[in-house]
Amino acid sequence: MVNPLAEELQRGRRAAPCSLVIFGATGDLTHRKLVPALAGLKRDGLLPAGFAVVGFARREKTDEQFREELAAGVAEHGRTGAGEGFDALRESIFYHRSSFEDGDGYAALGRRLEAVERELGTTGNRMLYLATPPSAYSGILANLRDAGLSQESSDRFARVVVEKPFGHDLESARALNAQVGAAFAEDQVYRIDHYLGKETVQNILAMRFANGIFEPLWNGNFIDHVQITVAESIGVEGRGAYFEEAGVLRDMIQNHLLQVLTLVAMEPPVSLASNHVRDEKVKVLHAIRSFAPHEVAENTVRGRYTKDFVGGVEVPGYLDEPGVSSDSNTETYAAVRLEIHNWRWGGTPFFLRSGKRLPRRVSEIAIHFKRPPHHLFANNDLSPNILLLRIQPDEGISLRFGSKVPGPDVNIRDVRMDFRYGSAFGRESADAYERLLLDAMLGDSTLFARRDEVEEAWRIVDSIHAGWRDFHPRGYGAGTWGPEQADRLLGAGRVWRRP
Amino acid sequence: MVNPLAEELQRGRRAAPCSLVIFGATGDLTHRKLVPALAGLKRDGLLPAGFAVVGFARREKTDEQFREELAAGVAEHGRTGAGEGFDALRESIFYHRSSFEDGDGYAALGRRLEAVERELGTTGNRMLYLATPPSAYSGILANLRDAGLSQESSDRFARVVVEKPFGHDLESARALNAQVGAAFAEDQVYRIDHYLGKETVQNILAMRFANGIFEPLWNGNFIDHVQITVAESIGVEGRGAYFEEAGVLRDMIQNHLLQVLTLVAMEPPVSLASNHVRDEKVKVLHAIRSFAPHEVAENTVRGRYTKDFVGGVEVPGYLDEPGVSSDSNTETYAAVRLEIHNWRWGGTPFFLRSGKRLPRRVSEIAIHFKRPPHHLFANNDLSPNILLLRIQPDEGISLRFGSKVPGPDVNIRDVRMDFRYGSAFGRESADAYERLLLDAMLGDSTLFARRDEVEEAWRIVDSIHAGWRDFHPRGYGAGTWGPEQADRLLGAGRVWRRP
Repeated sequence: MVNPLAEELQRGRRAAPCSLVIFGATGDLTHRKLVPALAGLKRDGLLPAGFAVVGFARREKTDEQFREELAAGVAEHGRTGAGEGFDALRESIFYHRSSFEDGDGYAALGRRLEAVERELGTTGNRMLYLATPPSAYSGILANLRDAGLSQESSDRFARVVVEKPFGHDLESARALNAQVGAAFAEDQVYRIDHYLGKETVQNILAMRFANGIFEPLWNGNFIDHVQITVAESIGVEGRGAYFEEAGVLRDMIQNHLLQVLTLVAMEPPVSLASNHVRDEKVKVLHAIRSFAPHEVAENTVRGRYTKDFVGGVEVPGYLDEPGVSSDSNTETYAAVRLEIHNWRWGGTPFFLRSGKRLPRRVSEIAIHFKRPPHHLFANNDLSPNILLLRIQPDEGISLRFGSKVPGPDVNIRDVRMDFRYGSAFGRESADAYERLLLDAMLGDSTLFARRDEVEEAWRIVDSIHAGWRDFHPRGYGAGTWGPEQADRLLGAGRVWRRP
Repeated sequence: MVNPLAEELQRGRRAAPCSLVIFGATGDLTHRKLVPALAGLKRDGLLPAGFAVVGFARREKTDEQFREELAAGVAEHGRTGAGEGFDALRESIFYHRSSFEDGDGYAALGRRLEAVERELGTTGNRMLYLATPPSAYSGILANLRDAGLSQESSDRFARVVVEKPFGHDLESARALNAQVGAAFAEDQVYRIDHYLGKETVQNILAMRFANGIFEPLWNGNFIDHVQITVAESIGVEGRGAYFEEAGVLRDMIQNHLLQVLTLVAMEPPVSLASNHVRDEKVKVLHAIRSFAPHEVAENTVRGRYTKDFVGGVEVPGYLDEPGVSSDSNTETYAAVRLEIHNWRWGGTPFFLRSGKRLPRRVSEIAIHFKRPPHHLFANNDLSPNILLLRIQPDEGISLRFGSKVPGPDVNIRDVRMDFRYGSAFGRESADAYERLLLDAMLGDSTLFARRDEVEEAWRIVDSIHAGWRDFHPRGYGAGTWGPEQADRLLGAGRVWRRP
């Protein structure tokens, strides 16, 4: 398998030399995702020649200790060849000890970076990656600004990459955006949603706008409704305390699912330039009204998994998970009916659902088309056509349509046309973090959420939370497709897919 | 594999008892197609219990000799299990000797049928199948009428099945239709075009009208042009003398390709009732204007294969085939550009081509969609989307569209979504003759050409012949895709598929 990112080199979009500072360098994200992705990029020759990583964290540690720990993470989580890439990167990795609140630590970071830059030729370009818990963001941002580390000049960039969760609600998101904005201009900011790094998600735009046949059908005249599903089969897996503060609505729908929705629903952009694309995405969110509290019950369903047998094994209910309060009011399942009030989508609902402990790990977008206006094939109960964009697993596209069953009668049965990424291109999809790290180094923010997108998504989500205040999640058995109330959400004649 | 026709039984559409008289019972069609198809139907229990075959031909022969000859044909040309079916049918097959012109022979046929009907319980229903050379049709039709064999009554049917060629031009087709009409009412007449018995051809209507997604795109706003190809790899194969009088335009385009065109281009019918469907088909032909002689050169290409190497073996040119005149003016390849002058198709050309000694045996309909109106993916030379209906071999449907190549750049490449009949339904398509024989027994004439359809097709074809009078076919090497002039027929930006 060729790394698809390698085509990068042939097309001339090369990242300039830079240093990458990771705040929260001893955390999970760094070990599981960031450094394995960097090792993968290095292995395939996609990192610039002048490149250094500086880990920034609280604990006492030598460079060598830090490298050892990262090596173990790459061995466990990296893809094929990542170990080799890490070895090539190893001597360019450094550790800088400081608390996130200590201004002197940032001044020292600046001096350290200058030394690294001289030594490794990374010039003055800097990427600052916030991989800490969100509670640390505020201190880091203020200190970066005060130490002058957020400043760009004509010959060097300073970019900040911010991990989710980006706020807890609209108010906190605005406050965080204000803090980010006090240190960085918006075009220096890269808010990561790793879902946007997935190939199938990126392919939504290619499908819609590189083809003549989809866009004419892509509106409420021909589409009955859209289902966007992100299902997990696991539970909270020891992250109960974190999850208690979040819930599926904040953790998944506010970011991943609403981002996917904007790509499905947006108008064609003027160009693929980052702000042209994001202008159209945010317009979709503008067109979704906040719910009045009394509208929430009929437009949403929230659920919480209960103890049940999954594959013959009993798994605990959410309330029995470690770190979960016995009077918890947090949902592990949410389904939402959204209306996009614009010319294209008026009257065509989008249904979003996400949950834990569902039967399968699957992410997909299902475009359900309207039935034909005239039923010529009277004996046949025709199912509607469905265009299915499979994000995971088994990335690809299928189209379900009715075809004549061979035989003397006109007997229609649903068949599927299929396209699979893997077999079509003979290569694996690039890892989402590899893609996004490279894009940030290249200064391409198309696949990152802009300030207004994040705030608009919180506005919608907040209005749902306001309506949820007074009632509790409904139970659903672990390993089922969520509370039965979710079926009624769709309305007559529609059913949730059971992928 | 289950015979798909077997579903017939479950759906209650059962053929009534009848006798089938085959005129031209010693000919090729009878041995290769008709009797093997009857044997296949019998084997699968699809023939009525009371059923008899009476072969009518000139040569002296006993019933037993006739059965022996047919058995050999079934062994050679029948599908799996047909031999078994033939054995079950064998004792219900009879031979009636008479010349086609001899009125007494028809009176004797009537008495013979009455005897068979008493013996085998086939009631008085009769199917009369003209499998003779067309020169015999006139005599047979007149004698059938004079002998009262074309008469129906409320409790018994009399149907005539007429094989192609149905006339040689509009004048002869009209004359033949008048002769048919003098003996039979139009609803007693079944003009066979075996192309309409093919599953994929029948599936055109199912695809278009059982789905919500195709019809909105099915017009000149979104379709750039349509290519209909019926290619044969063989030459005239000893039928040179017959072919000299026909040519590809008469032999293939007048019937098979124009029939397929009407199914692709027709408006949705009010119902699937035979005349509702055929009303819409004939409207398409009405909307195709006859060519003025000076328009023919720019809208058609005719070709004739010349000696060339095919797979390392030299094959003769058409002029060297036995039975072909050295000053022949007959084409073995024809390509035609047709405009359908109606609201749906104005300005969207249909290109039909058919030929012998082309590189592959393949029949397909390729719907070429327009390119998107705005090219967002500037680096990519996007090919148009194509919906491909494959009639043979490898029956099925594919959709070609652009998809993002995995990788960091937005790089679009064509991919195909595929659907194959065989693997989707786990059964082979029914033989076209089985289907059509059964439909005729059932009195369903949807898949048979109506008088006005045949005459309209001749009108169009005649206007091309008129323009061809003064120039000769262009040469193309055997095993190539026809004369190079055919490429220019399409116009700028369009290319013929090379399936």
